[in-house]
Amino acid sequence: MQWNEIADHAKQWIKEAGSLLVASLQVSLVIETKSSASDLVTNMDRQIEQFFIEKIQGTYPHHRILGEEGYGDKLTSFEGTVWLIDPIDGTMNFVHQKRNFAISIGIYHDGIGKIGIIYDPVQDELYSTIAGEGAYCNDIAIPKLGTGIVEEGIVAVNAIWLTENSMLNCEKMTALVRRLRGTRSYGCAALEIVYVATGRLDGYITPRLSPWDFGGGAIIVQEVGGIITDFKGNSLNPIEKSSVLVAKPGVYEQLLEYVN
Amino acid sequence: MQWNEIADHAKQWIKEAGSLLVASLQVSLVIETKSSASDLVTNMDRQIEQFFIEKIQGTYPHHRILGEEGYGDKLTSFEGTVWLIDPIDGTMNFVHQKRNFAISIGIYHDGIGKIGIIYDPVQDELYSTIAGEGAYCNDIAIPKLGTGIVEEGIVAVNAIWLTENSMLNCEKMTALVRRLRGTRSYGCAALEIVYVATGRLDGYITPRLSPWDFGGGAIIVQEVGGIITDFKGNSLNPIEKSSVLVAKPGVYEQLLEYVN
Repeated sequence: MQWNEIADHAKQWIKEAGSLLVASLQVSLVIETKSSASDLVTNMDRQIEQFFIEKIQGTYPHHRILGEEGYGDKLTSFEGTVWLIDPIDGTMNFVHQKRNFAISIGIYHDGIGKIGIIYDPVQDELYSTIAGEGAYCNDIAIPKLGTGIVEEGIVAVNAIWLTENSMLNCEKMTALVRRLRGTRSYGCAALEIVYVATGRLDGYITPRLSPWDFGGGAIIVQEVGGIITDFKGNSLNPIEKSSVLVAKPGVYEQLLEYVN
Repeated sequence: MQWNEIADHAKQWIKEAGSLLVASLQVSLVIETKSSASDLVTNMDRQIEQFFIEKIQGTYPHHRILGEEGYGDKLTSFEGTVWLIDPIDGTMNFVHQKRNFAISIGIYHDGIGKIGIIYDPVQDELYSTIAGEGAYCNDIAIPKLGTGIVEEGIVAVNAIWLTENSMLNCEKMTALVRRLRGTRSYGCAALEIVYVATGRLDGYITPRLSPWDFGGGAIIVQEVGGIITDFKGNSLNPIEKSSVLVAKPGVYEQLLEYVN
């Protein structure tokens, strides 16, 4: 398989898609809600997913596609080459802020991560990796992550997970938040994962992501030595929803005690 | 008083200071802690405050200066013209992220806000107002804020304020967070206030800010119809530490019930 060629195509398409998104911010969006008022979807989510499906099917007809808007394939196994696509990760930011959103692509072969690409079109920042060949932000290599400790760590965790909920122990989370140097929340999982890769964050905790949310970022952050698992410390299954804990070494092991 | 001339000087100096900060990100910083490990201060905080003091004293020798690093004047009253300066708001972001920080200037005359300027040097975004003459991001006028409701609102609140603390009622905050469309946390008060002014956020809640943290942003957000007070609904006193609630109309009144 020509992973370099596939990565080049994916980068070209994600940049085109990003330009469409930025252009759309100048005109009115059609906004609908999916499952709840906080789960927005726009005409652009659908249009961008269709854009990728046409490109991929036209060039790689045997590849399969799993996308947030459901226009791709219905996958029950992870055989062959599969593209995980989130056309707009952070739709709420896209609608309210016109920034802090990203397009995410993860390409897996027989369940193994091969290519991860996240594009923040407003910042024109393209995070990418071909597994084993290093990770980049635009054309600059992202250094390997060192080790850290939570007392000096900034971790992304949304305030909602400090309230009573079924997925995280509220008392343990309270103890963690008090121990950290600081917390942040950006509302865009793909960016929060690559911010761990670039060292802007030392960790990120979120109880429920879909494969298209973490599929691209997981490959990038692992390439620089970051650790990404579910809350039990298991590898992520790229065709199932999952809790996600991602952090630099040292911080990861400490955070795992709070979320497990 | 020539407020236009003073604003032009302040903009010129804040841009120069921003360039110094961006340049400093290329070299190693000397980092110390002030009161706690999460309250960092760098050599650049001090250098930038000194930069402003020299500029202001050289040009407006009768103006007084209140700055975060304490090199300015000791103020007990707010007579005359006073500059509130935060040389780096969001020092933790400056150190860890090399982005998401700002320089903040608020200029008050006899306690009345006259000029507000916030500069995000990494984004090259300059938010400014001369009171009564409109607010701008770079050279683009920021529209007046409409009214909103919390159910459709994104509000900045740090996760730490969902834990038991002496300044906010944890149960009321939990109820609020569940009612909001979403929460965010950026770790830079000056930017979080101007994000309310630009509509990227619908509100921002924080229990303890110093005058230099809110002095510039308060003038900008009020200029576009935003409301900024302490948690009791009182006007902010620009020489005292304070809780700060800032939001667009409608959202403000609803948020006040949760923080009062």
